[in-house]
Amino acid sequence: MAKPYVIGIDMGGTNTAFGIVDARGNVIASDSIKTGKHSNFDDYVDELYTEVTRVIEAAGATDMINGIGIGAPNGNYYTGMIEGAPNLPWPCPIPLADKITAKFGIPCIITNDANAAAIGEMTYGAARGMKDFIMITLGTGVGSGIVVGGQMVYGHDGFAGELGHVIMKRNNGRMCGCGRTGCLEAYCSATGVARTAREFLEIRSDESKLRELDADAITSKDVFDAAMAGDKLAKEIFDYTGKILGEALADFTAFSAPEAFVIFGGLAKSGDLIMNPIKDSFEKNVLPLWRGKVKILFSEMKEADAAILGASALGWEVKED
Amino acid sequence: MAKPYVIGIDMGGTNTAFGIVDARGNVIASDSIKTGKHSNFDDYVDELYTEVTRVIEAAGATDMINGIGIGAPNGNYYTGMIEGAPNLPWPCPIPLADKITAKFGIPCIITNDANAAAIGEMTYGAARGMKDFIMITLGTGVGSGIVVGGQMVYGHDGFAGELGHVIMKRNNGRMCGCGRTGCLEAYCSATGVARTAREFLEIRSDESKLRELDADAITSKDVFDAAMAGDKLAKEIFDYTGKILGEALADFTAFSAPEAFVIFGGLAKSGDLIMNPIKDSFEKNVLPLWRGKVKILFSEMKEADAAILGASALGWEVKED
Repeated sequence: MAKPYVIGIDMGGTNTAFGIVDARGNVIASDSIKTGKHSNFDDYVDELYTEVTRVIEAAGATDMINGIGIGAPNGNYYTGMIEGAPNLPWPCPIPLADKITAKFGIPCIITNDANAAAIGEMTYGAARGMKDFIMITLGTGVGSGIVVGGQMVYGHDGFAGELGHVIMKRNNGRMCGCGRTGCLEAYCSATGVARTAREFLEIRSDESKLRELDADAITSKDVFDAAMAGDKLAKEIFDYTGKILGEALADFTAFSAPEAFVIFGGLAKSGDLIMNPIKDSFEKNVLPLWRGKVKILFSEMKEADAAILGASALGWEVKED
Repeated sequence: MAKPYVIGIDMGGTNTAFGIVDARGNVIASDSIKTGKHSNFDDYVDELYTEVTRVIEAAGATDMINGIGIGAPNGNYYTGMIEGAPNLPWPCPIPLADKITAKFGIPCIITNDANAAAIGEMTYGAARGMKDFIMITLGTGVGSGIVVGGQMVYGHDGFAGELGHVIMKRNNGRMCGCGRTGCLEAYCSATGVARTAREFLEIRSDESKLRELDADAITSKDVFDAAMAGDKLAKEIFDYTGKILGEALADFTAFSAPEAFVIFGGLAKSGDLIMNPIKDSFEKNVLPLWRGKVKILFSEMKEADAAILGASALGWEVKED
């Protein structure tokens, strides 16, 4: 029989957040540690073990943990390894699931962070009850988690859902961190918005509050603040971003005909500034049979909660020995 | 207990082919009728019933049919309806599954033709044993059937897998039959190859055997024949087609990380002429983590067999009353 709690861990480049979660999805206790503090991966696992154990004991949940689920950058559901994660301080591949299972004496399943968020959204958020939806995370990069027929799409090798690396500009596209050019991520991530700002400021001559800032240091937050204060150029940067994302979502619809897209992550906080141009562009670009039929929603979860809850759901999947 | 045979029906705009199939995938008898002969859909169903019944009786399979599976243009697995099929002579929507079930007294499940081919390929062809692959059909149009985790991807509304209508040229793209511009289908279908031929002949001035033909009447078969006879321009038409298809497959890989793509349909008969540029372009364009790791194969089935066998597999899915 399943034990009453699971642990969800959201492993990011800066922080690792974790929570104890019950079968109803309540986070009954949570805390976090600094991911980057340890240059040695085993030291990191040791601190994580100490801190998680402390929280488990304080919550009176000792010996009551069914499993551990982790969302980690490039975490592979099939292999339990982190395979190539530039934002983490340790050399890859990292045998994360095995190390955690060995240290905690509790079975562990991992997946990547966007998939964990999608599982969280499906279980507790805007995609509750949906069997076909696509989670798009707009953060430093663009990630995605795809659900088809109620199942997470992992693909043959566990790396499915790299929708940030679909090519949106085949000619003269922006350089992307993946080594290619024109990727969705180069335009529609927070970083992409800042790049668009620099491009617009250089090419255009109209006035903008953004001209008062150091162009090289402009962030998507600066663009958001300017747009909210009525800056026309800043608004057009969001229009441009949303237009490209809407084109991409139209193509993704031709793939898996989702009921909804759920937009998640930092840029999702831009509200209508980003949502209106996404929807306009989507309806203009999607195959006629889907016009007006696909929902585009914002996540209903706090970012940290989505990842912890989503990862924790994997803790119910573990098999007993 | 399941009865020992199923009927597979491949409904095309010109012909409707059908076969009686046993549990091992042997077509024990088959025949076909002309789809377009009847302006009234009920008359078509009547003739199909008469002919299929004749074949069933001749095979000694009366009362031994477990179910009927049909692959039809725009056939919807969920609703059993054909919803909008420009190549069929009857007004849509057509309640195909209900009409067939009522007439035959045997339960019927339908899907679209590309999905039926994918199911056939998974059960009996190049994708045997694969849980994640994408079938690409290159015919008059470009169709697709997507399999994820061993399951056909139908999507929320049953229309998933319209990969022929992913946008490959966002600027100045060719008009597509769907009313938009730049779709994969406008370039990589048999029709697309013929359009490329006309475009090349108009823009370029180099010699080609294709110049001896009436430009408006050129077919992909003409281009194939010229290329096989060493015509340089004709070969470049296949290079151009394969380049765009390879770019598309690279993007599709970012979606579902398939083990393989299976290329099916008329253009697949072009062999290396089309396969070599597809593979070159795929490897150049795919995200580095998948380089050299995704198979691109030709279908191993005869076209008619794939559709009949694939459709027939649905005949095992039917539920007993």
